[in-house]
Amino acid sequence: MAPGTASTALLTDHYELTMLQASLASGAAHRRCVFELFARRLTGDRRYGVVAGIGRVLDAIRDFRFRPEEIAFLRETQVVDEPTLEYLEGYRFTGSIWGYPEGEVYFPGSPILIVEGTFAEACILETLLLSILNHDSAVATAASRMINAAEERPCIEMGSRRTHEDAAVASARAAYIAGFASTSNLEAGRRYGVPTRGTSAHSFTLLHDTERDAFVAQVDSLGKGTTLLVDTYDVREAVRTAVEVAGPELGGVRLDSGDLVAQAREVREQLDELGATTTRITVTSDLDEFAIAALAAAPVDGYGVGTSLVTGSGVPTAGMVYKLVSREGDDGAQVSVAKKALNKASVGGRKYAMRRLDERGVAEAEVIGIGEQPDNDGNDRNLLVELVRGGEVVSTATLDDARARHEASVAELPARARRLSRGEPAIPTVYEDDEK
Amino acid sequence: MAPGTASTALLTDHYELTMLQASLASGAAHRRCVFELFARRLTGDRRYGVVAGIGRVLDAIRDFRFRPEEIAFLRETQVVDEPTLEYLEGYRFTGSIWGYPEGEVYFPGSPILIVEGTFAEACILETLLLSILNHDSAVATAASRMINAAEERPCIEMGSRRTHEDAAVASARAAYIAGFASTSNLEAGRRYGVPTRGTSAHSFTLLHDTERDAFVAQVDSLGKGTTLLVDTYDVREAVRTAVEVAGPELGGVRLDSGDLVAQAREVREQLDELGATTTRITVTSDLDEFAIAALAAAPVDGYGVGTSLVTGSGVPTAGMVYKLVSREGDDGAQVSVAKKALNKASVGGRKYAMRRLDERGVAEAEVIGIGEQPDNDGNDRNLLVELVRGGEVVSTATLDDARARHEASVAELPARARRLSRGEPAIPTVYEDDEK
Repeated sequence: MAPGTASTALLTDHYELTMLQASLASGAAHRRCVFELFARRLTGDRRYGVVAGIGRVLDAIRDFRFRPEEIAFLRETQVVDEPTLEYLEGYRFTGSIWGYPEGEVYFPGSPILIVEGTFAEACILETLLLSILNHDSAVATAASRMINAAEERPCIEMGSRRTHEDAAVASARAAYIAGFASTSNLEAGRRYGVPTRGTSAHSFTLLHDTERDAFVAQVDSLGKGTTLLVDTYDVREAVRTAVEVAGPELGGVRLDSGDLVAQAREVREQLDELGATTTRITVTSDLDEFAIAALAAAPVDGYGVGTSLVTGSGVPTAGMVYKLVSREGDDGAQVSVAKKALNKASVGGRKYAMRRLDERGVAEAEVIGIGEQPDNDGNDRNLLVELVRGGEVVSTATLDDARARHEASVAELPARARRLSRGEPAIPTVYEDDEK
Repeated sequence: MAPGTASTALLTDHYELTMLQASLASGAAHRRCVFELFARRLTGDRRYGVVAGIGRVLDAIRDFRFRPEEIAFLRETQVVDEPTLEYLEGYRFTGSIWGYPEGEVYFPGSPILIVEGTFAEACILETLLLSILNHDSAVATAASRMINAAEERPCIEMGSRRTHEDAAVASARAAYIAGFASTSNLEAGRRYGVPTRGTSAHSFTLLHDTERDAFVAQVDSLGKGTTLLVDTYDVREAVRTAVEVAGPELGGVRLDSGDLVAQAREVREQLDELGATTTRITVTSDLDEFAIAALAAAPVDGYGVGTSLVTGSGVPTAGMVYKLVSREGDDGAQVSVAKKALNKASVGGRKYAMRRLDERGVAEAEVIGIGEQPDNDGNDRNLLVELVRGGEVVSTATLDDARARHEASVAELPARARRLSRGEPAIPTVYEDDEK
């Protein structure tokens, strides 16, 4: 949600409100419920998923208010009846939310969010929570694979132009959590403090009468540390001109087309011959984690990643769902519930989650307790943190915390987790029932 | 951009502003330029693309202002120097924009937007224009294929939960342009007037003690015309209960899992036996254009489409680019310019576009004039409309206009355009040079 927008309440499916209406009428709306947000499987047959968007979820819940303008729209379009509008006017989430900290990795069935409250208050958050977590986690998961492929080389997020303008801001944030060094997106800089970077485009070179004029203009204005784009016309000539203009202190050159492996080698050789041994080579041009891996042996100093980052590298949504797993029965006690339909079965009951670690601290399993906390085998790590208590946000995690959490969680995974090929989750998900 | 957000100016790549700085310093910033927004190819080997987002672009340009808070951020983070900040403070696009009307179909090379102004004012719009058009057009293109596959049956957009919360609103808008009947997204209803629809989810059934209780609650509150979800437990039993509760006037049932073709037949037969001959069957569950086509012979009355719609059905971005094609030279005359790099070559010069139609009104070619309007063969249709003149929006097209334009443009295409398989564009793109 963009800043300045005072309500997130209508970023919601119509049926959340008609269900609310029917349940208010039947009285069931006030039953205490537990909803769980999780992924049935890792989309794209990835080895692990990355949780991103938790901070945005907490902001969005705070802004989930039905102001007079939202109520007026719902009344005018007759989406729901007057008793429902009355409920919505006073709406404020008063329940509790536990979840995975942002940056944490997840596996099939991991209880990424556990939302406890009345049916009414928890149900109508469904669409918004899923929108944020499905989008941001898909981007962060792709980003994490790219970071693995890039090893120590920095990755810059530059995909804003290939995704919705506000999704671009969230993508930059998610990529940063997964280890990207910076973004091209200025709003991500303002809104979230992600470092922003950028130099120039082909249009800048074409604007000037000669490539040399363009390079002189850029170096004069932005300094010798700038990165010059050298593939508008002839790369070899451009590199020569670039070093003539900026001297061997030239910060970097960018390659945005052609055979990047061969070209990086030629350019590195040429730069070294010209004495520009510290000038960095940044490559861009439709990179994804596979292209980055293929460039591992090339003399490249950084990667700019656009389209494939913001589109989740073939998997633009994380496939998470939000399911009722427990509700109050007639007698006031909680009843586990689950849908039985083929291929979409859920596991009922409130969940707990731990990551089982072996004696060397390597992850072995995602252990999910149903109805109670699983036993700790000694090294196990609790995964759920308290995010909202009685409607108040209690999490104080920052974006840097999320970045650190992500790095630590990936480091803990077995080596097979870093494979780029399709396959099984890096660790199995194990359910521990409270009836054991 | 969400309403209430007063500026879109930072939804922009860092380098747009550093290029601005360097060109202001060199003086080249004030050269009159022509930028063109187009797609080099149809992503996903589709037969045609659909232009969506033009209305959002016009709103976004209006809101592209650097207010004191944007300037403060840029100053604090030292993105650009003081002369550049001074330019940005007074920024207002004063140029002209021609483009394809929203809903129009496009082909490789179609000049979807032509932006004329100084380098400074046209360059810095790049990121935002591409974000909007790449996203919205990808969704509309997928949506149009689904509408073709669905033939006369209505499609409901319900993918909000599987994409960024604000991209969801834009997706609903794009789907509506391409012929979707309605959306689940309430904000799309408020912001753009798209009709919204919705009934209930599995959680609503699970909330109640029995499925019958849930159906009674829904029918009592929402009326017999409502659509009941019948696959939470056993479909056959649910359908029987549904008709018992609502009577044969039951509006509809929804199937969200399993073998939809077989299940739709069984449910139709059962409904007919129960006398509910007018009760509609809506199917959902991971539909895309191929699944919809496969359901053509099944007794289905409507399709709810989610994930694949909002993710462009495998093609989440349209791959459009924004290129400088002409700029003022030293002598004040316009000079055509184009990048020469391998695989990314552009065609320089200001473009004009017409759709060549045969005597029966069937499209034969996308004819693009370079530097001048191509000759009209008699039936040809001009494609470019004036959108912005001297910085003022002159287009008055509504969403319904876009919907009508889309329907008419698709109707004009040869039958091969409606093929779902990968292949060549339905019509070729032909360039007519002014030197002919």
